[in-house]
Amino acid sequence: MITSSANPQIKRILQLNKKAKTRYEQRVFVAEGIKMCMEAPKEQVEAMYVSESFLQEESRREKIQGYSFEVIPDSLFRTVCDTKTPQGILCLVKMPEYRLEDLWKPARACREGRENRGNPHLLILEGIQDPGNLGTMIRTGEGAGATGIIMDKNTVDIFHPKTIRATMGSLYRMPFYIAPDLPGAILSLKEQGISIYAAHLEGDMAYHQPDYRKPAGFLIGNEGNGLSRETAGMADTLIRIPMDGQVESLNAAVAAAVLMYEVRRQRDR
Amino acid sequence: MITSSANPQIKRILQLNKKAKTRYEQRVFVAEGIKMCMEAPKEQVEAMYVSESFLQEESRREKIQGYSFEVIPDSLFRTVCDTKTPQGILCLVKMPEYRLEDLWKPARACREGRENRGNPHLLILEGIQDPGNLGTMIRTGEGAGATGIIMDKNTVDIFHPKTIRATMGSLYRMPFYIAPDLPGAILSLKEQGISIYAAHLEGDMAYHQPDYRKPAGFLIGNEGNGLSRETAGMADTLIRIPMDGQVESLNAAVAAAVLMYEVRRQRDR
Repeated sequence: MITSSANPQIKRILQLNKKAKTRYEQRVFVAEGIKMCMEAPKEQVEAMYVSESFLQEESRREKIQGYSFEVIPDSLFRTVCDTKTPQGILCLVKMPEYRLEDLWKPARACREGRENRGNPHLLILEGIQDPGNLGTMIRTGEGAGATGIIMDKNTVDIFHPKTIRATMGSLYRMPFYIAPDLPGAILSLKEQGISIYAAHLEGDMAYHQPDYRKPAGFLIGNEGNGLSRETAGMADTLIRIPMDGQVESLNAAVAAAVLMYEVRRQRDR
Repeated sequence: MITSSANPQIKRILQLNKKAKTRYEQRVFVAEGIKMCMEAPKEQVEAMYVSESFLQEESRREKIQGYSFEVIPDSLFRTVCDTKTPQGILCLVKMPEYRLEDLWKPARACREGRENRGNPHLLILEGIQDPGNLGTMIRTGEGAGATGIIMDKNTVDIFHPKTIRATMGSLYRMPFYIAPDLPGAILSLKEQGISIYAAHLEGDMAYHQPDYRKPAGFLIGNEGNGLSRETAGMADTLIRIPMDGQVESLNAAVAAAVLMYEVRRQRDR
């Protein structure tokens, strides 16, 4: 049992939750809650911590059989968590590592049983700021059969506690790549024959007009400012999500969902 | 200039921002920020407050010409705001009032220029808890040409500061109805010939199979638990949003967006 807030393990969890820099130095992130801990690939779980009251319930004890774990008193446990009402379990998980080319190769579980297995379907993010939006895009992406998510360095950290929570576990299954050079990555995709579409107010075509049964990637820009001119300029086709009334733009996660599910709809037929 | 935190106007703003009960007693809500204040129908703006530094910029002073307003010192202004970095302007706005039948009649600005003007396209919400989700659904609804949003008493308040912010102004243009009796309201819709669809894991049809060029309403349930059995049972058709991988559900605002934009897509053709 760890009882002191000065314990180095407690300090480490706190730092990992607070600082992206610490996460990338150690290549580890914090997964909180039963779902996120149980869905983590077991071989990637580096450490597990539970609260005293978590251990008191038999059904919960059963879940963590076979894991080694440390116990933390409830009051101390709460102080290391990002959530306001923690479920009493957290893990330190090794970061998954993908290369850019992993995102267009037939990948693992998330595409099993799909007709278009491995047919590239990518989301390419520039400067997304809201961690909840990013997490929701990853969750929606898995549901819609996306094969990977690429983001630039200005996008909020994928291992931000709020991002992790919003993925609802999809983080473990969606291949992703943080591009040090986004234009370079987009060029590589184009060389693979992947058509690049940019959601843009001045799009030439409605979003449902292109044929997405062919390999496709979608550029989604920052919540406030959209795509940079340079990045939008790399798209093969500018597409438009029609908007009624006085709506000037959609929430970024909503726009991504509309596009990815249109791919899903076309590929299902 | 108001300088004391004990000033009754200051106390009123605080209460309106904090308590749904106060909002409904006074039939007034707080709109924060330039966009939300400028898009409020002028005749519904009951009072306007600006911070001292807001007044110092000429471009901002111009925006509020023709309004009467009170000035509040910056430090006091911050204390009454829900946002962490307020823009220095807020309004008290009279609640818009709609009847259920307003939601399926050809309505105002938000549908102007639409081929299917007034063709009912409704979102019906049960127990939505996240104010950001609710606001995003209202914003997406305006964009997708929805004619109205119905919610039950267990849905988070539409005038919650976070909901208002997430609507990005669509709150002023999207007709809505808070149903004291949701099953009764759904029955009224069905009597009008509006087909009711429920997004459901056990749906019989993929969501893109029905013909949405006819009047349609979509039931969306609580983020954690989905629709109640009773409400789902009132649907004419259970529809399924296909999900790959291990995804068990989509974010409620994402599911609503996929459905509403499918209506938009079909009606555009």
